Amino acid sequence: QSFIPVQNDSDFPIQNLPYGVFQTQGSRPRIGVAIGEYILDLSILAKEGYFNGPLLLSNCSCFCEESLNAFMALGRAYWLEARATVSRLLSASCPTIRDNTDLRSRCLILQQDAKMLIPAVIGDYTDFYSSKDHATNVGIMFRGKDNALPPNWLSMPIGYHGRASSVVVSGTDIPRPRGQVRPDNAAPPTYAPCRVMDFELEMGLFIGPGNSLGKPIDVNSAREHIFGLVLVNDWSARDVQKWEYVPLGPFNAKNFATSISPWVVTLDALGDMSVPAPVQDPPVPDYLQENVRRTLSIDLEVLIQGKDMESPAAVTKSNFKYLYWTMEQQIAHHTSTGCNLRPGDMLASGTISGPVEESLGCLLELSWQGTREVKLGSSGQVRKFLQDEDCVIMRAHATHPKGYRVGFGECRGRILPTIQP
Amino acid sequence: QSFIPVQNDSDFPIQNLPYGVFQTQGSRPRIGVAIGEYILDLSILAKEGYFNGPLLLSNCSCFCEESLNAFMALGRAYWLEARATVSRLLSASCPTIRDNTDLRSRCLILQQDAKMLIPAVIGDYTDFYSSKDHATNVGIMFRGKDNALPPNWLSMPIGYHGRASSVVVSGTDIPRPRGQVRPDNAAPPTYAPCRVMDFELEMGLFIGPGNSLGKPIDVNSAREHIFGLVLVNDWSARDVQKWEYVPLGPFNAKNFATSISPWVVTLDALGDMSVPAPVQDPPVPDYLQENVRRTLSIDLEVLIQGKDMESPAAVTKSNFKYLYWTMEQQIAHHTSTGCNLRPGDMLASGTISGPVEESLGCLLELSWQGTREVKLGSSGQVRKFLQDEDCVIMRAHATHPKGYRVGFGECRGRILPTIQP
Ligand SMILES: [Ca+2]
Ligand SMILES: [Ca+2]
Ligand SMILES: [Mg+2]
Ligand SMILES: [Mg+2]
Ligand code: NI
Repeated sequence: QSFIPVQNDSDFPIQNLPYGVFQTQGSRPRIGVAIGEYILDLSILAKEGYFNGPLLLSNCSCFCEESLNAFMALGRAYWLEARATVSRLLSASCPTIRDNTDLRSRCLILQQDAKMLIPAVIGDYTDFYSSKDHATNVGIMFRGKDNALPPNWLSMPIGYHGRASSVVVSGTDIPRPRGQVRPDNAAPPTYAPCRVMDFELEMGLFIGPGNSLGKPIDVNSAREHIFGLVLVNDWSARDVQKWEYVPLGPFNAKNFATSISPWVVTLDALGDMSVPAPVQDPPVPDYLQENVRRTLSIDLEVLIQGKDMESPAAVTKSNFKYLYWTMEQQIAHHTSTGCNLRPGDMLASGTISGPVEESLGCLLELSWQGTREVKLGSSGQVRKFLQDEDCVIMRAHATHPKGYRVGFGECRGRILPTIQP
Repeated sequence: QSFIPVQNDSDFPIQNLPYGVFQTQGSRPRIGVAIGEYILDLSILAKEGYFNGPLLLSNCSCFCEESLNAFMALGRAYWLEARATVSRLLSASCPTIRDNTDLRSRCLILQQDAKMLIPAVIGDYTDFYSSKDHATNVGIMFRGKDNALPPNWLSMPIGYHGRASSVVVSGTDIPRPRGQVRPDNAAPPTYAPCRVMDFELEMGLFIGPGNSLGKPIDVNSAREHIFGLVLVNDWSARDVQKWEYVPLGPFNAKNFATSISPWVVTLDALGDMSVPAPVQDPPVPDYLQENVRRTLSIDLEVLIQGKDMESPAAVTKSNFKYLYWTMEQQIAHHTSTGCNLRPGDMLASGTISGPVEESLGCLLELSWQGTREVKLGSSGQVRKFLQDEDCVIMRAHATHPKGYRVGFGECRGRILPTIQP
């Protein structure tokens, strides 16, 4: 328990303690931890000497930076010490902040008074394709039932390099992109506003310590390289994608924006919510075989709030545990040729679809390529794809056996009308 | 003419003045310009007030940084002033450096005494596929003569996102990667050392001023966003590529390393070597139509020096002008959906193959998928793909009508035996 009041259904109890970068009026960006409706400003605690554990004593300047990269780079021993220090300082029994009115007023900021920024400088962003249900559904739509899963899909976590420059934080509006499309194969392609705008429900992991070029990361030690997780909306212009993606993969269909949630939830906060990962058949190559094969149970939800709707309506509920390929396998595969990962790199999961219609992770699947309508709750509105002014809201949380939530807050983004060129 | 003696066949006469980042024993990385066999240390000139033009007077601290990004971001007016200042200071008629023994000994370093570093922090690296000959050849090999060019190829410069973290500078050794391959479709895939190692002869452009998210760059003003060019070797593990690339494009086959030459040759040094770009038929969509359609004539050469060879042997000679899509079109297309480019981002051309066998840009084409042997000069050695200890050397230069060369130096890399896991 914390001395700060935390609602039962809060995403941010003292057991969570996710890290983020925030800014208040007239001040520099700095690092904080979410607790209930507050942010604990770690830059102040660092400057005033409250990180007095043996490891962070001489390394806590990382909390005064404008991104989490330096802290991510330190590794798990440092993360555990930071977590223990923050947990102690926030606990109901610790008077240090609780009873120091001055310190308390300076280091606790209401989240509603702060602006959240992108948590890390993302050197490279990779997007995987690790949900078997998603890959199968898309395969059926694009290549027919008999060739749904590509032949390599069951032997490697397929991924592609995404665009790091256009990863934006939750709350950023997304103008509807224009792009080259060819709706009619009998006519030449044109440059036009996207007519098939979609979201993709994903989660992204941030790399902590990286690896040097030429040295693959073993699948059984990959976990130590994961700092934490965020929600990811991999916005997708499906009409652009369809025309461009053969033979070199998605490019402009994805690179106009990718939204992420601002709070990075650490693996240490999620450790107790692990569950067995799906059995893999056929067996995977050696370098992808895990001694212990576990994943996380994280409930995921996507809501849409259209222009005249009073509240957002859920359109899908999925779970991180459905992913066929684990994060550890993604890391081992990504580095298997010797590719180097750096602190702050982001690896997204790919669209997380579940086995039933109500758990599909994008409108392409939910509307089955626009052949059926998706109801927006009781609003009377329906969607096949996103309309201008639609706000897409993603939420995620894991529930501890003891009942508390380790939540991710929100990843939200609103589609604006296309910008006139 | 410069007061520094420059050989007639030097890549770095006073008309070139390419920028790079170098380091000498015991000192910090800093920015320099190549002149003959020397490097002119711009950090010293900046600190001592020699950049006294109106624009750089208060902005020349960019020359004291460890990468070119800040200078790239300033834009062409600044680049032209810097070029004029450096050109004047190096000219035979200017006594400032010429007659100041002390300054001269501090600001002129022999290239052989310096180590060249990566010239920019590359935020994102994109690889295009802009040679029609290359795309046609690869298409014939992978999909047959009738479907050689993908249907979208003639209407957009196809590209994919590459891996920025593994871009390395010329001179870096490249261990032969391991990767997941499936040489025998009747057997499961395995994790094994690459057996089909290849180079790809490319050039890369560095972005100067970028664009903000959501604001495409017009094809007719795209030139102002290009700082300069380097040689690029997009090392390719063809067996990994073949098995992984459908449906999301090349990933591990390319992300283990990409080598670039250290000197960035500016567009202003290359301006006089422009030639008409290939006529495009069918006409391209509006946003890719250029008022003036020109490219650069840059002679390219790839040499291989095998283990017991006394000197490198040329295996191909090509030219930048063969590219069907111009740099301006690549930039316009890349940003057409609103994707933002940042200073220091690198856009590579794709393999630059010419129309004849002696001008093909990779061994995949030169050996026609390993069906014919490529002679290494008079060494008696032949190659289908790269062997351990092979050093691949790329060179490039443009020749001015007046006879001098604007050269790129070398992009070299040696294949080492695979690292045991
Ligand atoms: Ca995706
Ligand atoms: Ca390439
Ligand atoms: Mg995206
Ligand atoms: Mg490469
Ligand atoms: Ni990148």
